[in-house]
Amino acid sequence: MRVVVIGGGAGGMSSASRVRALKPEWKVTVFEATNFVSHAPCGIPYVVEGVSELPKLMYYPPEVFIEKRGIDLRMNTKVTDVTRNSVKYVENGEEKEIEWDYLVIATGASPIRPGIEGIDLEGIFTVDLPPDAERIVRYAEKAENIVIVGSGYIGLEMAEAFSARKKNVTVIEMLNHPLPNFDEDIAEVVKKEMEKWVDLRLNEKVTAFEGKDRVEKVVTDKGEYKADMVIVAVGAKPNTELAERLGVKIGETGAIWTDRKMQTSMENVYACGDCAETFHMVTGKRVWNPLAPPGNKMGYVAGVNICGGDLEFPGVLGTQITKFHELEIGRTGLNEKEAREAGFDPQTTFIKAQTRVHYYPGGRKTFIKVIADRNTKRILGAQIAGYDSVLMRVNTMAAVIQTGMTTKDLFFADLAYAPPFAPTWEPLIVAARTLKF
Amino acid sequence: MRVVVIGGGAGGMSSASRVRALKPEWKVTVFEATNFVSHAPCGIPYVVEGVSELPKLMYYPPEVFIEKRGIDLRMNTKVTDVTRNSVKYVENGEEKEIEWDYLVIATGASPIRPGIEGIDLEGIFTVDLPPDAERIVRYAEKAENIVIVGSGYIGLEMAEAFSARKKNVTVIEMLNHPLPNFDEDIAEVVKKEMEKWVDLRLNEKVTAFEGKDRVEKVVTDKGEYKADMVIVAVGAKPNTELAERLGVKIGETGAIWTDRKMQTSMENVYACGDCAETFHMVTGKRVWNPLAPPGNKMGYVAGVNICGGDLEFPGVLGTQITKFHELEIGRTGLNEKEAREAGFDPQTTFIKAQTRVHYYPGGRKTFIKVIADRNTKRILGAQIAGYDSVLMRVNTMAAVIQTGMTTKDLFFADLAYAPPFAPTWEPLIVAARTLKF
Repeated sequence: MRVVVIGGGAGGMSSASRVRALKPEWKVTVFEATNFVSHAPCGIPYVVEGVSELPKLMYYPPEVFIEKRGIDLRMNTKVTDVTRNSVKYVENGEEKEIEWDYLVIATGASPIRPGIEGIDLEGIFTVDLPPDAERIVRYAEKAENIVIVGSGYIGLEMAEAFSARKKNVTVIEMLNHPLPNFDEDIAEVVKKEMEKWVDLRLNEKVTAFEGKDRVEKVVTDKGEYKADMVIVAVGAKPNTELAERLGVKIGETGAIWTDRKMQTSMENVYACGDCAETFHMVTGKRVWNPLAPPGNKMGYVAGVNICGGDLEFPGVLGTQITKFHELEIGRTGLNEKEAREAGFDPQTTFIKAQTRVHYYPGGRKTFIKVIADRNTKRILGAQIAGYDSVLMRVNTMAAVIQTGMTTKDLFFADLAYAPPFAPTWEPLIVAARTLKF
Repeated sequence: MRVVVIGGGAGGMSSASRVRALKPEWKVTVFEATNFVSHAPCGIPYVVEGVSELPKLMYYPPEVFIEKRGIDLRMNTKVTDVTRNSVKYVENGEEKEIEWDYLVIATGASPIRPGIEGIDLEGIFTVDLPPDAERIVRYAEKAENIVIVGSGYIGLEMAEAFSARKKNVTVIEMLNHPLPNFDEDIAEVVKKEMEKWVDLRLNEKVTAFEGKDRVEKVVTDKGEYKADMVIVAVGAKPNTELAERLGVKIGETGAIWTDRKMQTSMENVYACGDCAETFHMVTGKRVWNPLAPPGNKMGYVAGVNICGGDLEFPGVLGTQITKFHELEIGRTGLNEKEAREAGFDPQTTFIKAQTRVHYYPGGRKTFIKVIADRNTKRILGAQIAGYDSVLMRVNTMAAVIQTGMTTKDLFFADLAYAPPFAPTWEPLIVAARTLKF
């Protein structure tokens, strides 16, 4: 059997590796358009900040896949077309074709480049794949004033990176708070932290980029900002062109429709990673959640099922974490708006706590929002912003939400305590108590 | 109604506070034998180490309970006897009696003082209540060689405290590894860390303490050690004397028997905190688990039920965390031996991982053991020792185990990832994968 995988990111390489592990006699070919494989785009802001090194933004070097896992990996090779039994690609300038028995579409996602006037001026960047880091770093050397459009995860991380490098950073956000997929109360904590480092402009919409050869100015509906460089971070979209050309179904989210086995609407064609849709574990509804950990698992599930297995991907909670300088920010499950839209009657609590007992040094402030359904008392979501232990509370809540725990179950969770680590009354348990049960 | 609470620790004060919150018209009297209330014995090692201050080892000062919560709190007041409707106590040298409608026994636990020859010599200490910290600190000023008997949590924490203060520390443990309630493989990690700081003597039994006026030497079955001071930390036992005198049932664990509402075998008599038994959430069996967080919750539950509520305490997972210098160590659920004793067929995995992606600085080593039931694939327990994020993994696993997740559920847990926080493949998820599903 011949398995062809389009895309050498998290999803693609996980599926290829799984197939080779289960069926060592099968031939697995992966086409990757860039010179990076199992690449780590999440590392780009940290390369820009100067804490990480660009060449390391591969989880494994190509040799691991080729020699150790026996994958026929073609780097710098772009797939140009796909049919019901073959894939056309360009390798070393030459057009070639390969037949497949199983196809895995793992084409990833790309940043949105909005059709704003002047968007193609030199000095305007999006953040996509590791090579972008190099271009951004080089251009930033001579840039003093940097404007970031958008304050989602990538906007926030790039704002950290440039402000850490002592650039003059302006962040422009259309909405009334940073981090659009957080609720306003938690976003307020993030806003205050951002304002220490950057000029944060909320409720403001970019209308044009201006400059002669290169960008010099960002114009909004409220003013204009000197800009030697611009980062556009207004979201991403799944890369579905090849899938559409093949004729597989595109889901309501705009990503490739798959069933829980990661099979598309077409037999023997699978999709995984940032180009594929999945399900939300709380609502059961289809969502698009382009992140590395679910991408890896989707690839794993696709690989198992291609080899005749019977494994279902249960979906995601939208769990995410990031940081802005010292402030850690994370979420899991539904936010208040999403909970309402999903038909729940959200009941919320917002608490402020110290992360250690009062008598042990080093405790930091943390802000916790927990959302439950008023009727069933099921925990639906959590958002946390604080200076310590945010990962702990986000992951604990991810397990809590996945299993449908109620406020009472959370109150009685046997979470760890010791003076150097946490307060006796763990703030998550206090949150459960304030939500009543 | 008159509620009398014996003991002003975590359990006692939680029950008293809850009753006052629900029934502001009831009279609540708490008798506390020491000059500390809502005391924090877990802080003693850190006072000895010099990172915490003794006066702060109260969660709340007496005024909060007396003035804000309206509790009739009697400090330095020892209860001498208890009958079916009254409590006798000594206050300011005078014997008095008070009647009760509801009684809460929250008499805590005490360290075991084994009947070893010479145990009563000066310079031999146990670690019990905050005032011990003061005595230990004072005596340690002139002590150079300190022998710690026992390497459970308290032994370990005291070993950290004295080695941080550059004392010459010997730890003597009867078993073949430190931390008796951990499995050997994880304890091996702890052992290696301990050996960097102290002289750890395993498989060795103390047979006598020797000295003229004060302890000078610890004799074991294998040798003898110069000792200017000794800490005996070989475990604790519940304080059940008053309960026995009253005639309430003592459970199979040696602690006071209670039902899930924290009521003892006698109507209107409740017990909570370190003197009371509870249930293990995995096995359903009765266990004694003297720790602050369950103690607080038992008190809360007792308070609710005394006021006519109907709240059941579901029990504990034995979740614990501590540290030895930089090494963090935690557990939740059953260890391998406990799993076997409870009738499971334990399947285990032991993995070593870094706590961050390879390209983000600051990742540290962590060792994770996860135990599942071979037949049902239910996760039964986890033990973790590492230099970062142990609290996160212990708490996540506590939620995982509480809800009966299987290895597959854990593999699909949507845990957070970002370069500054964790690797893309969260080690807990790798552990689930290696356990198969």
